[in-house]
Amino acid sequence: MRFVDTIEKKADGNALTKEEIQEMIDGYVKGDIPDYQMSSMCMAILQKGMTPQETADLTMAMMHSGDVVDLSDLPGVKLDKHSTGGVGDTTTLVVAPLVAACGGTVAKMSGRGLGHTGGTLDKLESIPGTSIEQSMDRFKEIVKENGVAVIGQTGNLVPADKKLYALRDVTATVRSIPLIASSIMSKKLASGADAIVLDVKTGTGAFMRTKEEAFTLAKLMVSIGTLVGRKVRALVTDMNQPLGMAVGNALEVREAVELLSGKIAETDPLYEVCMLLGENMMMLAGLAENEAEAQKKLKQAIADGSGLKRLQKMIALQGGDSSYLTFENMEKLVAVKQHIEVKADSDGYVSSMDAEKIGTAAQLLGAGRAKKEDTIDPAVGLVMRVRCGYAVKKGSSLCTLYVNDDTYLKDAEELLHEAIEITPEKGEIKPMIYGTVTEKDI
Amino acid sequence: MRFVDTIEKKADGNALTKEEIQEMIDGYVKGDIPDYQMSSMCMAILQKGMTPQETADLTMAMMHSGDVVDLSDLPGVKLDKHSTGGVGDTTTLVVAPLVAACGGTVAKMSGRGLGHTGGTLDKLESIPGTSIEQSMDRFKEIVKENGVAVIGQTGNLVPADKKLYALRDVTATVRSIPLIASSIMSKKLASGADAIVLDVKTGTGAFMRTKEEAFTLAKLMVSIGTLVGRKVRALVTDMNQPLGMAVGNALEVREAVELLSGKIAETDPLYEVCMLLGENMMMLAGLAENEAEAQKKLKQAIADGSGLKRLQKMIALQGGDSSYLTFENMEKLVAVKQHIEVKADSDGYVSSMDAEKIGTAAQLLGAGRAKKEDTIDPAVGLVMRVRCGYAVKKGSSLCTLYVNDDTYLKDAEELLHEAIEITPEKGEIKPMIYGTVTEKDI
Repeated sequence: MRFVDTIEKKADGNALTKEEIQEMIDGYVKGDIPDYQMSSMCMAILQKGMTPQETADLTMAMMHSGDVVDLSDLPGVKLDKHSTGGVGDTTTLVVAPLVAACGGTVAKMSGRGLGHTGGTLDKLESIPGTSIEQSMDRFKEIVKENGVAVIGQTGNLVPADKKLYALRDVTATVRSIPLIASSIMSKKLASGADAIVLDVKTGTGAFMRTKEEAFTLAKLMVSIGTLVGRKVRALVTDMNQPLGMAVGNALEVREAVELLSGKIAETDPLYEVCMLLGENMMMLAGLAENEAEAQKKLKQAIADGSGLKRLQKMIALQGGDSSYLTFENMEKLVAVKQHIEVKADSDGYVSSMDAEKIGTAAQLLGAGRAKKEDTIDPAVGLVMRVRCGYAVKKGSSLCTLYVNDDTYLKDAEELLHEAIEITPEKGEIKPMIYGTVTEKDI
Repeated sequence: MRFVDTIEKKADGNALTKEEIQEMIDGYVKGDIPDYQMSSMCMAILQKGMTPQETADLTMAMMHSGDVVDLSDLPGVKLDKHSTGGVGDTTTLVVAPLVAACGGTVAKMSGRGLGHTGGTLDKLESIPGTSIEQSMDRFKEIVKENGVAVIGQTGNLVPADKKLYALRDVTATVRSIPLIASSIMSKKLASGADAIVLDVKTGTGAFMRTKEEAFTLAKLMVSIGTLVGRKVRALVTDMNQPLGMAVGNALEVREAVELLSGKIAETDPLYEVCMLLGENMMMLAGLAENEAEAQKKLKQAIADGSGLKRLQKMIALQGGDSSYLTFENMEKLVAVKQHIEVKADSDGYVSSMDAEKIGTAAQLLGAGRAKKEDTIDPAVGLVMRVRCGYAVKKGSSLCTLYVNDDTYLKDAEELLHEAIEITPEKGEIKPMIYGTVTEKDI
């Protein structure tokens, strides 16, 4: 079949066969299918959708376009987690060591931040000496010894996704749910995990602007996992405000250390989401029968400091100076030239926050990249002083900026004033967690 | 606005502004917008459509991407006609000289055939010496002297369409009705006519497979013409069987000469469609008050031979040997090595014909091109002996093949047997003409 006929088939709303999808990905990676045909196909997929089976076939074709990591020589169920990208989301640095402390095997490959969302690799690199580049053998050694390691992508994982994502980015086809699902899942599956817990964000700071879209994506990814024989669960969580209070690399590491040190309340949204992620990882790995048992073990690993110890040891094994990773020493990593308070300009309640704008403000201060080649300043960023629903007085602090380079300081401040809406009445507060999608829900 | 945002706007189903459309066409012609973005946009347009205003804006942007012919120094209303491409459609060679004989000014630029449909230029070139390449000055001189000339596209007309059509052809975006309408109308408007009669074909041999699609395209093109201040009407006619009986270049010229010589019955489909086209051209040009008056004049131009004389003179002025263009002499142009009858293999009625297959069969005999660089044999092709609804006996001729090169003869014969369906019962016969769309209908 000529590829133009395959495009037409999709443009007419028909499902593609496994063979057609395989030919498409093979042809595109080889260069036999040019960008101008692939972009037309992507727009047809955006408009007409794909069935779960088509999306699973696409995921598998993409996964096998490059190297596939084999973790079978590691003990037990190999666990991974993935977030669709949020602001102030430092869950990996909390959950991965906590689950390891409870007996889990967390061999995670992570990504860098781009745009308004932060990346776990950048956060790790804010700890002096830490290397996210480890050989596959060394990666496995660390996991065997410590139960957890987090590194960057190694080898040639899913080249189809790299090429396709770059094309989608310039052809207005990024937000196709089957294409998002296959992009995420192909990378997760190629990374070798047996069980994966996904955190699908919804709201102003997320790809999925509505709860409905987020659940559609979550269900589709759980379906794909199930169709290809992996254990997958997905949370749908709120990104209408930052998850944690810190937005910035070392600032988020500090918040993770605070949580692992038992210094953050159980009612805190970051705490809640970390617990839910951890519980689901524990259950998928057979480390707990139910949520209550999982939660109890996770809380114990906070209380006895064993979670923090796993993080410290991971950093040390990855070449980093783990002496920074204590509640007391973290301040050295977030030392900056000046702290600036962004203050409320009226009395009232925080009625809404725009997480994307808050992330962009942190980026303007040097905490994130606008382009891939930009460098970041690990110490800078911001710490929110309020959440949605908080009462504020005129002149009270909404957030503290951690500033070294003040080139875009004014823009950042303006953006934060735009992002944090204060109204006389207390508005409706959205829940932090909308739900969990398991195999039973698809 | 970045073009990726313009694509997204269309992907979301919104109408583009005139400025956005202008930037798109300018950018694409200049090469600032790459093929991979334009193909994504074309697929978004195929899926989400365009309003008549958008389509008119697109048409004008495309029209002005290159040269625009100025026919204002010719007298009266400059007339053009256009068919969306049919099999056995030799109407231009009949209607253009007939309307000229009735006082019209027909300055027509025509196209070549590709695939299963014939092209007027190829038909003209089947008459020895005829040149379809004329300078603009010479073209106008011929029109001034004779009221009619038909030449190939001159200069750099609508480069945007050339580039865009080539892209659409390989990205499954050809059949977008707004893109088809703007492609046709930009070329017609750039050719300088004041008034245009369109013939939109529907059926197995046409782009528009359904009557509904054909009326949509017809109305859209009439809307575009009206929005940009031209007079446009559109017929919707049947292409579930060849229009004329002849399919092949000189064979179709012969049929045109027969019609202009009064040798073809008024009930003949080719005759009917030629009359309707001619009537509408006459009315748009103010040469007749109503259809009856127009028809009377056109019939007079057949009866007194003045229509045929215009065709002969046009050929002579374009360098051709017009002595061939008599009912008697035409046989010399269609002389071939062998005539082969394709015979009915059962008694019954012709219940359906596949015009595309019949056109392809003629192409296989050498009457058309599969690729642009293919050469054609002007004498070969086929003459149908039956139409839908005709009774046939086993062994009676369905059509006569005019053959010089028999390389693909068997394939052509097979295709014709497939194309002409014979059933015991007489089926429903579709009308030849479905309707006329005028300014009042939009």
